[in-house]
Amino acid sequence: MSFTERVFNFSAGPAVLPLPVLLEAQRDLVCYPGGGASVMELSHRGKVIDGIIKEAEARLRRILGVPDDYHVLFLQGGATTQFCMIPMNFLGEGGADYLEQGTWSKKAFGEAKRLGRAEVVWSGKEGGYSTLPEDNEYKVRPEASYFHVTSNETIHGVEFHRDPESYGVPMICDSSSDFLSRPVDMTKYAMMYAGAQKNVGPAGVTIVIIADSFYQKLIVDEKRPIMFDYRNHVEGKSLYNTCPVFAIYIVGLVLKWLEEEVGGLENMYARNQKKATLLYKALDESEGFYKGHAAVKARSLMNVTWRLPNEELEKQFAKEAEEAGMIGLKGHRSVGGIRASIYNAMPYEGVEKLVEFMKKFQERNA
Amino acid sequence: MSFTERVFNFSAGPAVLPLPVLLEAQRDLVCYPGGGASVMELSHRGKVIDGIIKEAEARLRRILGVPDDYHVLFLQGGATTQFCMIPMNFLGEGGADYLEQGTWSKKAFGEAKRLGRAEVVWSGKEGGYSTLPEDNEYKVRPEASYFHVTSNETIHGVEFHRDPESYGVPMICDSSSDFLSRPVDMTKYAMMYAGAQKNVGPAGVTIVIIADSFYQKLIVDEKRPIMFDYRNHVEGKSLYNTCPVFAIYIVGLVLKWLEEEVGGLENMYARNQKKATLLYKALDESEGFYKGHAAVKARSLMNVTWRLPNEELEKQFAKEAEEAGMIGLKGHRSVGGIRASIYNAMPYEGVEKLVEFMKKFQERNA
Repeated sequence: MSFTERVFNFSAGPAVLPLPVLLEAQRDLVCYPGGGASVMELSHRGKVIDGIIKEAEARLRRILGVPDDYHVLFLQGGATTQFCMIPMNFLGEGGADYLEQGTWSKKAFGEAKRLGRAEVVWSGKEGGYSTLPEDNEYKVRPEASYFHVTSNETIHGVEFHRDPESYGVPMICDSSSDFLSRPVDMTKYAMMYAGAQKNVGPAGVTIVIIADSFYQKLIVDEKRPIMFDYRNHVEGKSLYNTCPVFAIYIVGLVLKWLEEEVGGLENMYARNQKKATLLYKALDESEGFYKGHAAVKARSLMNVTWRLPNEELEKQFAKEAEEAGMIGLKGHRSVGGIRASIYNAMPYEGVEKLVEFMKKFQERNA
Repeated sequence: MSFTERVFNFSAGPAVLPLPVLLEAQRDLVCYPGGGASVMELSHRGKVIDGIIKEAEARLRRILGVPDDYHVLFLQGGATTQFCMIPMNFLGEGGADYLEQGTWSKKAFGEAKRLGRAEVVWSGKEGGYSTLPEDNEYKVRPEASYFHVTSNETIHGVEFHRDPESYGVPMICDSSSDFLSRPVDMTKYAMMYAGAQKNVGPAGVTIVIIADSFYQKLIVDEKRPIMFDYRNHVEGKSLYNTCPVFAIYIVGLVLKWLEEEVGGLENMYARNQKKATLLYKALDESEGFYKGHAAVKARSLMNVTWRLPNEELEKQFAKEAEEAGMIGLKGHRSVGGIRASIYNAMPYEGVEKLVEFMKKFQERNA
């Protein structure tokens, strides 16, 4: 397919961005007002970019309620780099505890295991990663250096709808695919990180938030390479080396949209609930033609995953949806099926159009 | 200063980009032709982005003359991440040899030293990093795992005007600040890497080129975290995790400009020589008012560094230049003075304007 205008983009990441963000970025792309050059060309240590980074950080702190004694970093390398850096910097003799909720948390766990002691304290593997535990279904070892959770598993489409209990152990959360989609209590987290390319910006920047009290527990290791040592990034205030300026700028515009146009996380959450409710209702009312993957209580508001009666129909579904102007609906190559990612920036109209298409597709193929 | 239109940007990086690149990116920012969405929103594993990445790689191979048995990677984390990954992956028992040519090569050396045996085989420290060695002024130990050079030192403004001799040891070159500024013989390099934000794109992507014969010498180490193991990036063809799509797209546009509008590296080199000649001539004819830092034979064509009679005048120079529409002329905070970065995308007219300004400034202040 080749499109001459914008379509509804259900990709899991990189993913849809708010149209006002793209229009503002386009307007200022060649010459940023007051800067004399494109944002892409200006020094990361100059006044204009310094202002852009500081404003993005301040907005993020307001929107998410990040306490003053937390560090906010804009880094490179995606969540996978954080999977590696976390044990490199924080895995002590007590080891670390992980929830195994799906592909990404499993990968995060693997990197802790590689470097020392790490335990899976609950696994969704037997259930095909279709559900998440209640607080009383797992225990965290009190001696653990940290407890790692993934707030939303992008591939399987399961999401926590609360801040999980960490039983007094510092909790680290990979929030890549539901970051800023609902209010959270940041004081419950020792650390939270998110690749930007799902809910807050383009690929190429990772937001890392660390409580200073947890940061102080960083293990000193002279063999740790400079770029993989959080101290350099905290002390350099995200400018230890040249930061991904343009990606941070876009994140700043998304945060402005979230704060000024949407009106904050309560409103964002209400919008996301409304979209997800519409889509899950379509699954539930299909009389088994569309079979949702996630257990009802763990259904993700961000990534909705389902199967059709057979793979042939799934392929046809994705193909016909694309012809109708809805892209990115093919499930992750590791699990198949259909996945509709309906992040913050996906408008309600996009989900309405998808649901309408689903009904007609079923009529033709049931 | 606040500018309402584009000025001449002499920043060391992020740095000036070709205007046609910015205009094309602006035109297609909201909806990439055929894609139905912005380049920032499209899946890194979809057809459109796959085409963009493959085309960028093919152009790079043509322009630079990269042999088929070399791997080309688009990674994150800047050259500093490469400083760390190189010894993590390639530093064997024989250790590695480094040239200490200035701030950046010293930092690269530090990361090898951290992990094992590393030797400085020539240092420019005594001369204030103002010159570079001839081939016969250093030796490389035959048992070294690799020999590391920096083709251009951005802060001090010294540059090799040849492919250095490595005496049979695999040569790794940090080419961040003169990448694609002149023809090189890639077969002499085991590896070359460059942060994009000087000569080829925005901050946020690093180009890494590795000869397969050298890659095969990678040291297997089960303790090496997945993101810092070149095998994952080579096997994943730059898509081991989500790549910095938009930054790679801009690199692709710069490469198109270099190939189609400039006409390749011979032409680019001629343009760069012409610009640098004009500027160094202005230093030489100033009767000592402008005192160049680099020894004549090591003068960089990319970063021209000089001092004025005192720091007060240097501040005034940078300030008045900015008022006249020339930004980014302040020297690096670690060495002071003035630095004019005149990368590939700096037009000749920018250097002409700077030289004109220098003459008038001298008349007023000598």
